[in-house]
Amino acid sequence: MLENKTRTELSSLGEFGLIRHLTSSIELKHTSSLKGVGDDAAVIDKGDGNVLLVSTDMLLEGVHFDLAYVPLKHLGYKAAAVNISDICAMNGTAKQMLVSFGASSRFSLEAIEELYEGIYLACRKYNVDVVGGDTSSSKTGLTISITVIGEAKKENVVYRSGAQEKDLLCVSGDLGSAYLGLLLLEREKQVFVAHPGAQPDLEGNDYILERQLKPDPRTDIIQLFAELGIKPTSMIDISDGLASEIMHLCTQSEKGCTIYDEKLPIDPSSSDKAHEFNLDPTTCMLNGGEDYELLFTIAMSDYEKIKNSLDISVIGHITDKASGVNLVTRDGTQHPITAQGWNAFK
Amino acid sequence: MLENKTRTELSSLGEFGLIRHLTSSIELKHTSSLKGVGDDAAVIDKGDGNVLLVSTDMLLEGVHFDLAYVPLKHLGYKAAAVNISDICAMNGTAKQMLVSFGASSRFSLEAIEELYEGIYLACRKYNVDVVGGDTSSSKTGLTISITVIGEAKKENVVYRSGAQEKDLLCVSGDLGSAYLGLLLLEREKQVFVAHPGAQPDLEGNDYILERQLKPDPRTDIIQLFAELGIKPTSMIDISDGLASEIMHLCTQSEKGCTIYDEKLPIDPSSSDKAHEFNLDPTTCMLNGGEDYELLFTIAMSDYEKIKNSLDISVIGHITDKASGVNLVTRDGTQHPITAQGWNAFK
Repeated sequence: MLENKTRTELSSLGEFGLIRHLTSSIELKHTSSLKGVGDDAAVIDKGDGNVLLVSTDMLLEGVHFDLAYVPLKHLGYKAAAVNISDICAMNGTAKQMLVSFGASSRFSLEAIEELYEGIYLACRKYNVDVVGGDTSSSKTGLTISITVIGEAKKENVVYRSGAQEKDLLCVSGDLGSAYLGLLLLEREKQVFVAHPGAQPDLEGNDYILERQLKPDPRTDIIQLFAELGIKPTSMIDISDGLASEIMHLCTQSEKGCTIYDEKLPIDPSSSDKAHEFNLDPTTCMLNGGEDYELLFTIAMSDYEKIKNSLDISVIGHITDKASGVNLVTRDGTQHPITAQGWNAFK
Repeated sequence: MLENKTRTELSSLGEFGLIRHLTSSIELKHTSSLKGVGDDAAVIDKGDGNVLLVSTDMLLEGVHFDLAYVPLKHLGYKAAAVNISDICAMNGTAKQMLVSFGASSRFSLEAIEELYEGIYLACRKYNVDVVGGDTSSSKTGLTISITVIGEAKKENVVYRSGAQEKDLLCVSGDLGSAYLGLLLLEREKQVFVAHPGAQPDLEGNDYILERQLKPDPRTDIIQLFAELGIKPTSMIDISDGLASEIMHLCTQSEKGCTIYDEKLPIDPSSSDKAHEFNLDPTTCMLNGGEDYELLFTIAMSDYEKIKNSLDISVIGHITDKASGVNLVTRDGTQHPITAQGWNAFK
C-alpha cells in the first residue's frame, strides 16, 4: 500500500524541512489562533489581554533516549523540563501539562512510577499542574508525549521573528556541557558492552552529567526579564545546539548576525572535558544541543539593564540579512555558521 | 535497571486502574485548573466566563491501528475526529490541534502526506486550526499523538459526574457498527494472509466500514443541545463501548442505572451482520466501541425537547448507586452490566 508511488525518504527533508513541507499550506481560521506552527509554542488569544502558549514534544526510546544509561526518573524530569523550557522561550509561565505514554510489556508498573516521579518532581518545582494525558501499551519500547500549556500577557510574548539590526544577541548560562555529558554516558555504555563487569567511570563529572540528565528550564531568566523591565526582541531555547537556534532566529527575523567565539560561555570543566574527547569546545557549544539555555536578542538600549547579570552573556549582534550568520574566531577571522544541530531524522 | 525490584505488570491494573494509580496523588495548584485527569478533557479557566478544554490521545501502530487495512488518510482523519469527539463530550467546540508523529524509515514522505491529508480534511470539516506539533523518526512503526483544544462557556461544560437519579440516559446515533466494521476488516486480512491473491470481499458493507474507518464526532448534537436549550447533566463519548462508558458515568456520578436492550439503537444492516458473525447485536453495542457517539443524561423535564429528535435514543434512566448498573433484556429479566470495553493494556 505504501510502495506503489514515488517514494521520498523522510530523512531527505530533515526535521525542519519536513515540518515546513507538511504545514506550509495551513491557514489559521480562528481569530484566537495568533501563532501556529513555527515557534517554540503556539499562541492562543484568551481575549482578556492574556494568551495561552501551547507546546508539545514526543520522545521515543532509541531515538531521543537510551534507557541503558538514563534512569526513568531522570527521563521523566527531563521530558517535563524541556517542555517547560519551550514556554520560557516565549517569555511565558508554564501552568498545565498533559502526559501520554505508550509502554511495552518490558515496562513494569514500578518502572512507570519512576517515570512519573520524575515528571511530578519537575512539575512541583516549576509549579505546573498535570491535568490529563493518555496511557497505552506499545509493541516495542517507550514513547512519551507531553503537551504543556503556559500563559503570558499578550504584549509580553516574544517570538523568534522579532530580532532587529544592531540588537545584542545574548545567551543564558553556559553551553556545550549537556552534549559532553551525553558523550561520557555513551562512552561508558560502550565500555560496559565490551566488558559487562565494568563499573562506569563517571567520577568528577557531576556537572556535565547533571546538564545532560537533569536540565532545568530557565524560568529564573524569565523572572529576571520582568524584574529588569526587559522584553527581548526575539527568543528561542537551545535544544538542538546554538548554531541551529541562531539560524532559526535569523531566518525568522530575516536578519543576519555576527557572534564571537571568545564570548561564548562554557564551564571550565566542560572545556577541559572537550579537550579530553579531542573536541573543540566551540564545536560543542555550537552543535552540541540539549543545554536548554535561552538565546535571545535585546535592544542595545537595554544593555545597561543586563550588564551586571553574571548569568547572561552577550555573544554578538544582529546584522542585515545579506551579511549572513557568522562566527568570528579568536584569531579575528570570520566564518559562516552552518547549523549541524541534532536532526531527529538522521 | 528495571528488574531489581518487585515487578507489577501494567496489564494487571488495566488502563483505568493504571491512570488512577498514577494520578491519584495529583493536587491541582492553579486556580485556572478547574478539572484535571478523569473526564474527556481537562478544563482550564480562561477567566472571562469561558473555559478551555484540552484533551490528548496517543495512537500506536499494532495497538490502535493496523496499516494492513487502514489507509493512512483514514487513519489521519480518525485520529483528528476522535480528539474532536472528546471536546464534544464536554459540550464544547474544538478550535485548535497539535499533531505529533514518530515514523520509522518504512514510511515515505508520501505516506506521511496522506496521513496529514486525512488530519487536515477532518480539521477543515470541523473548523479546527492545526497550530503545532512535533515530528521525529522512530525505531519501529508509526506513533501519532494529538492534542486538541476546545472552548465552551464555563456554565455549559458537562462533566461525567453530574448524573442525577431519575435522569434519562440517552445516546446519539446508533451503536455496534464500528466494531462490526473492524471484525470484517480483520476477517478479510486473515483471508488475504492465507491467500495472498485474494481480493477483499467488502461489498455491501459500506456503513460498517465507514463507521470503523471514518467516524464523525457529533458536533451536530452539541449544536442541537444549544438550539433546544438543553444542558445534559452528564456526558461522555463512546470510544471503548457503551458498557464501559456507562460505568464511567455511573461511577463518577455515584449513581446506578437501568438500560433496556429493546431501546438500544443499532442499524438494521449491522444487526444482520452481527448474526452473520454469530454475535449477539446487543453484545456488539455494549462492548464494541469506537462508535464515537455521545452518551448523556438529561433531566426528565427536558424529555419534551428531545422526543422528536430521531437521532437521539432514550435507552434507560439513572437510579441510586445501590441498585447498580443493569440491563433489562427483552424477556424482562435484569442483569448487571460489567464493562468489557477495549483495554489498551490487553
